Amino acid sequence: MKAAIVTIGDEILIGQIVDTNSGFIAKSLDKIGIETYEMLSISDNKQHILDTFSLLQNKVEVVIITGGLGPTKDDITKHTLCEYFEDTLVRNTDVENHVIELIERALGREASQINKDQALVPSQSTVLHNQVGTAPGMWIKKENTVFISLPGVPYEMKYLIENQVIPKLVQEYQRPYIIHKTILTYGQGESHVAERIEDWENQLPEYIKLAYLPSPGRVRLRLTARGTNKQQLEDTIAENVKSLDAIIHDIIVGFEEEDTIEVVLGRILKEKQLTVATAESCTGGKIAQLFASVPGASTYFKGSVVCYATEVKMNVLGISKDLIAQHSVVSKEVASAMALSVQKIMQTDYAIATTGNAGPTKGDADAELGTVCIALATPNGVIVEEFNFGQPREKVIDRAVIKSLELLQKEILKNVL
Amino acid sequence: MKAAIVTIGDEILIGQIVDTNSGFIAKSLDKIGIETYEMLSISDNKQHILDTFSLLQNKVEVVIITGGLGPTKDDITKHTLCEYFEDTLVRNTDVENHVIELIERALGREASQINKDQALVPSQSTVLHNQVGTAPGMWIKKENTVFISLPGVPYEMKYLIENQVIPKLVQEYQRPYIIHKTILTYGQGESHVAERIEDWENQLPEYIKLAYLPSPGRVRLRLTARGTNKQQLEDTIAENVKSLDAIIHDIIVGFEEEDTIEVVLGRILKEKQLTVATAESCTGGKIAQLFASVPGASTYFKGSVVCYATEVKMNVLGISKDLIAQHSVVSKEVASAMALSVQKIMQTDYAIATTGNAGPTKGDADAELGTVCIALATPNGVIVEEFNFGQPREKVIDRAVIKSLELLQKEILKNVL
Repeated sequence: MKAAIVTIGDEILIGQIVDTNSGFIAKSLDKIGIETYEMLSISDNKQHILDTFSLLQNKVEVVIITGGLGPTKDDITKHTLCEYFEDTLVRNTDVENHVIELIERALGREASQINKDQALVPSQSTVLHNQVGTAPGMWIKKENTVFISLPGVPYEMKYLIENQVIPKLVQEYQRPYIIHKTILTYGQGESHVAERIEDWENQLPEYIKLAYLPSPGRVRLRLTARGTNKQQLEDTIAENVKSLDAIIHDIIVGFEEEDTIEVVLGRILKEKQLTVATAESCTGGKIAQLFASVPGASTYFKGSVVCYATEVKMNVLGISKDLIAQHSVVSKEVASAMALSVQKIMQTDYAIATTGNAGPTKGDADAELGTVCIALATPNGVIVEEFNFGQPREKVIDRAVIKSLELLQKEILKNVL
Repeated sequence: MKAAIVTIGDEILIGQIVDTNSGFIAKSLDKIGIETYEMLSISDNKQHILDTFSLLQNKVEVVIITGGLGPTKDDITKHTLCEYFEDTLVRNTDVENHVIELIERALGREASQINKDQALVPSQSTVLHNQVGTAPGMWIKKENTVFISLPGVPYEMKYLIENQVIPKLVQEYQRPYIIHKTILTYGQGESHVAERIEDWENQLPEYIKLAYLPSPGRVRLRLTARGTNKQQLEDTIAENVKSLDAIIHDIIVGFEEEDTIEVVLGRILKEKQLTVATAESCTGGKIAQLFASVPGASTYFKGSVVCYATEVKMNVLGISKDLIAQHSVVSKEVASAMALSVQKIMQTDYAIATTGNAGPTKGDADAELGTVCIALATPNGVIVEEFNFGQPREKVIDRAVIKSLELLQKEILKNVL
C-alpha cells in the first residue's frame, strides 16, 4: 500500500522554511505499514496542484496534503480540492462553533468572518476534527485514492495525524507488514563498514533491503523487510542481525529504531543513576539543549554554564587569568579546567567542556579556525582532546557537539557493556 | 526559468531524516532568478528515478539531484544517470587522485577500490570538483534540460552549489529577475493582519504575489515580483511597501530579507553596544544556542547558566531555598531572581530567564503542564510574565524561546526606534 505526501506553499520552494511535516507523516505511515512512494513540494498554484492530484490519482492509495488551509488569500488548497472533485464548499456548523469558541478563549475577541469561513469544507468530504486549531482536516475519496488535506502548522498537523488520520487509515485499509531494524555503529566510515560486511550483504534475501545512513563519526545500517507473513519477516531480520553482529560486533553500539545519541546516552545515564553537566564556549549551549530535548532528562542532566565570553569563563567557572594567558582560551588546559569546574559546581559524575574557534573570524584566541578542544571530566579525572573541524562554522559546531557526546558515550560504555 | 530539485534516498521517505538540502538549493537558485517549480523526494529505486527524470525532461531547464552518490550498494544514482543518458561510466583521473589524497590525509590509510570507484563518472558529464569530499558533482545535459547530480552530505552539497553549480548556471543561462521583500510584523494574528490590509492586497499588480508566513506571535508578509525590467520591479515593490507601512506601521518590526529574530536582535544589540545573558531552566540552553548561532555573537552574547536541576538554581545562581519553597520553582518570583542573578554574574545589560513545566510529566513543581514564567532583567529593573503554552513539550519549549526573544526585542526597540 502506497502513499504520497504533498506539501503546498511557496515559502518552501524559495527555501524560506524547511518542510519538516513530510518526515513526520512518513514516519507515522511507515509504522502502520504504508510505504511513502514520493514526497512533493509544490507552489500555491491551482493548475500545478490539479496536475499533481491527477498524476497521483490511482497511482497511490493515499495522498496526504499539508498547507494552504489558512484564512488568507494565498491559501487555495480548499478551493482547488473542490475543483478537482467537482464539488462545492458547504458550511460545517460543528467546525464553526469550534472556531468561534477557540478564538474567544485564546484571543478574547469575537471570531471574524474570515475566521468563521474556516468552517467551509467540500460537501463530499469527511471532516477530521482539529481540536488544536481553526483549520479542519478533510478526507475525500475518488476512485482508488483518498485525498487527506491537513493544515501546515506543525503541531496542528501532528495532532490530526495522530488522532484522526492514522486511526482512520488503520480502520479502513488492510496493510502489509513493514519491519525496520536499525544497527548503530560508530568509529568507522561508510566504505570501511561496507567492505567488512560485503559477503553478508550479498546473501540477504530479495525482500530485505539494506541502507547505509552515514553521519559524522557514525554509520547506521537499516534493514527493511516487507511482506505479508509477519513472523517470517521478524525471524529473518533477527537471524541476519545476529550474523551481522558476529562480523562487526566491535563497532556496534545500539539497535533501537529511533535512537539518537542523546537518547542512548540518556537511557544509560538514567539506568546507572549517573549525572552530567556541560560548560560550553564554542558550542553555545547546543549540547545542553540536546540533553534537555529528551523527555525526562531532568533525572540525569543538571545544567550548563554557557561561557561564550572569556570573562564568564573566569567569573563563573573560576578559570584563572594566568591559565588563559599562558595557554590561550582555546587550549586543552582551559577545556580541562572548564570541565572540572562545572563538574564541581553542579556536583555531577561527568562534565563536558568545549572551547574553540568556530569562525568565520577569530575570537579571543589565535588558534586556527576550526580548532576545538573538548574535555570530559569523569569520576576518575579528566580526558581532553584537540580537533580541527575545518570550516564552515556550522560544521565546526555540529562536529564538536557530536564528538563531545561520543567521548562521553565511549567513556560510560566502558563501564557498562 | 524553472528548476526541479530531486532528493534520492529511502531514509527520507521513511522519515528517518529530514531533507534540509532542498531548502538550501532553492534559496540559492532563487537568488539568481531561477524559480523552483517542484521539489521531490523519491526512493533509491532505478525505475522511479528514471520515470521522474522523464517527467521533468524539458518541463524544467534545470534538475538538481542530491543523494545516492555514496560508495555503497544502495547508492544507485550514477548508474541510473548512465542508463537515462545511454552512457557508460569512465574513470576520471583528476577525481581519482583527489580521492586518494583525501583518504590518505584524513584517515591516514590507502584508498580502497570502493573509494577509488568514486572517480567513475558518465562519459558525457562535466565533473564538478568536490574539494571537501570524495563524491564528485556531475553536470550532464539532454535537449533543454541539464541534470546536475550532487552528493547528499549537506556540507559537500553546499560547497558544490556555492562554488560550482551557481557560478556555472550564471555563466550559461539568461535569467529573469525575481525580487522578494519581506515585512516582519508581530503581535497580531494572520487573519487580523489580512483584514487590515485587504484593500491594499487587492490593488497589487498581477506580477506581484503576496504570501503570509505565520509563526507563533509573528507574521511575515512576503512580496515577490517577477519580470524582465529590474528597475520597474524594484520601484513597484518600494511603492507598495511604503503604502503598506502607512497602514500597519504599528506592528512592523523589520524589512530584511533573511531576518530571523536572533539576527535582528543581534544587529540591534551590536549597534547599541548592549550585552545579554540567559538563565534557562525549561528551555535547556535553546535561547543561548540561538544567540550563539549568529556569527559574531561574541560581541553581545556573554553566556548562560542552564539550570535544569533545582539545586543548580540554588548553587550557581544563588536563588534562595526559601524563595523556592514559598513560591515554587516555577513562579514569577523565581524567574525574576534568576534573571537578576545571571545579569549580575555575567555583567550584562539584559538577561533572560525561563522556568516552567514543559512536560510530558511534572518536574520539581506543581504548576500545570505548559506553564512557563519568563523574566527579563533590564538596566531599569525586571519584567516578568507567566504563560501557559499547553502541550506538547516541543511546542512549550519553542514558544517559550520565541516569547523570550520577543520580550527582549520589544524592550530594546522601545529605546531604539
